[in-house]
Amino acid sequence: MYEYSHGGNAVFERGNADIVDLSANINPLGVPDGVESAIIREFPNISRYPDNFNTLLRKKTAEFEGVNPERLFFGNGASDIIFRLPRAIKAEKVMLCAPTFADYARSAMSYGAKICRHTLYKENDFALDSNFINAVQKESPNLVYICNPNNPTGKITKRELIEELLNCCEKIGTSVVIDECFMDFTNQAALHTAKIFLEKYQNLVILKAFTKIFALPGIRLGYALCSDKILIESLYFHGADWAVSNLAQAAGLAALDGAEDFINRTVKFTTAQRKILENGLSQLGYKIFNSEANYVFLQNPYSFDLREKLDTQGIRIRSCGNYHGLNNSYYRIAVSTAENNAKLLPATGRATC
Amino acid sequence: MYEYSHGGNAVFERGNADIVDLSANINPLGVPDGVESAIIREFPNISRYPDNFNTLLRKKTAEFEGVNPERLFFGNGASDIIFRLPRAIKAEKVMLCAPTFADYARSAMSYGAKICRHTLYKENDFALDSNFINAVQKESPNLVYICNPNNPTGKITKRELIEELLNCCEKIGTSVVIDECFMDFTNQAALHTAKIFLEKYQNLVILKAFTKIFALPGIRLGYALCSDKILIESLYFHGADWAVSNLAQAAGLAALDGAEDFINRTVKFTTAQRKILENGLSQLGYKIFNSEANYVFLQNPYSFDLREKLDTQGIRIRSCGNYHGLNNSYYRIAVSTAENNAKLLPATGRATC
Repeated sequence: MYEYSHGGNAVFERGNADIVDLSANINPLGVPDGVESAIIREFPNISRYPDNFNTLLRKKTAEFEGVNPERLFFGNGASDIIFRLPRAIKAEKVMLCAPTFADYARSAMSYGAKICRHTLYKENDFALDSNFINAVQKESPNLVYICNPNNPTGKITKRELIEELLNCCEKIGTSVVIDECFMDFTNQAALHTAKIFLEKYQNLVILKAFTKIFALPGIRLGYALCSDKILIESLYFHGADWAVSNLAQAAGLAALDGAEDFINRTVKFTTAQRKILENGLSQLGYKIFNSEANYVFLQNPYSFDLREKLDTQGIRIRSCGNYHGLNNSYYRIAVSTAENNAKLLPATGRATC
Repeated sequence: MYEYSHGGNAVFERGNADIVDLSANINPLGVPDGVESAIIREFPNISRYPDNFNTLLRKKTAEFEGVNPERLFFGNGASDIIFRLPRAIKAEKVMLCAPTFADYARSAMSYGAKICRHTLYKENDFALDSNFINAVQKESPNLVYICNPNNPTGKITKRELIEELLNCCEKIGTSVVIDECFMDFTNQAALHTAKIFLEKYQNLVILKAFTKIFALPGIRLGYALCSDKILIESLYFHGADWAVSNLAQAAGLAALDGAEDFINRTVKFTTAQRKILENGLSQLGYKIFNSEANYVFLQNPYSFDLREKLDTQGIRIRSCGNYHGLNNSYYRIAVSTAENNAKLLPATGRATC
């Protein structure tokens, strides 16, 4: 029934810390300065329960996001919030894209919701278009998920379509969750984020996390932005208290110091490196899709299993065979450090088969 | 709808770190040696996702508990597991004692379960007796919670009754959760724990946590013991992945070094101090109940509000007014350091009104 369906576990699976793990899309610039010392400074408070309402962190994150602190809810990673959402919304029917992040479906199944999948097509570069709005109108779900940019394709959904969706969903009483966990890696996040719709649409929930952009998957820290106060209260109700540890709150506060510059450097670096990888992989014959995030999404035209091939060379990538709507010929590869990225290209070449 | 219903938040509520917080029952000996350095050593791994299956921690905790590592499931505090349980068990009807820990009820409500409460009476020293078995047989719930020793009374439920309950529940297909988060503070934990029933009864789940006994509420680390493999798989399914951070896993591993000696010292100290407090409070006219945990449970015969009275003196205790089956005359007071405990008695005296 349960199967671990994500990347990022190569070290545990292989018991080998030396493997280059490109199966999870973590910022290659690493953890922002100041996080380690903030955790050490917080240690003496570890014998106290955490602030259940993350007061200081909500305030500082709200400044970073340019929203009111009351619009924020923090969880034990964005995944924690994804599991609270169907219950908080009483989502009997949930609509998802295929392919997209697996936990939207699992949390819906956990609640017992019916799941409708809207297929994204290779021929359309896996883009979301107005067919989705038609499908939503036809199915009338309680909850709709858009991952923007999408995981694993890296494809951006345009703001015009998001607004059309919000408008349509508002009329039929549907909540719209936009997962922007990879948004800050894109070149024009300010143009693409749905944050500008927060005050206008009470049916909008935006998900974000410290996990990827601040390279902190090990600390567990994610948040939701939403202007519906009752939904935020309901998110508290439908999950455990003290979801965010003292150390995670302290780490989050420290990560936000100088975040703008850190993110600018990140975008510059990962965009340049992604292009190098995409060009190289394209020259090797792989079909590259247009990702705007910190990962490459590709289809392997050859008969070998690319993940296995790279595994034997100490590199782990994400096979997309377990994504609905994809198969074993698709792969997602994280943009890593220049050193790791340089290892990838020769290892991927046909000659090394 | 949502209201924070626990202790341990005095510092945040009052914005004053100097308050003596006796409203959460944390080991006054503090965090075991080695936890801080283990967290610092783990920091370089923070850019990796945690091991979703807590492999090393499960192995070491299993040795500590004397069970098979496959019997263990770890969560973001025991509360995380409490929220997964009703969904994992599909518990349409949940039976609880009154008074007891509030989250059993909230998690049941979140699932949409019907809640039956079995009242424990002052006249019976809030003890659980065979009436509970009768009530379970009559109501035939899917899930039954026993907190042992109970929160907030500190009262132990005898092993004979637990076995009778397991037996009865096995026949009617009811799961039994025994919350032993305070068990290691009692004088004869080995005589009282339900662990000896784990292999015999597949319908038994025992909850434990690093929170109280290892003074680590700020790190979020709890676990379940259960011999039903399908239920453990279901606990993974019905909640977010990566529930336990890297740092919490490292902290847990370190806390278990020398745990036996640490717990022995803890029991000796907290038992002696609890008796001093109970004697002193009894002499001041408070009605003391027979707690075997690291907290005092009492009824205030006077007309003043004891929590408010102590708050003005910089001490926070837990009013039990929001526990089902109790009222504002009941209080729970954590056994703290000798210094804090010594402050409590004079502050509680009538003369200081």
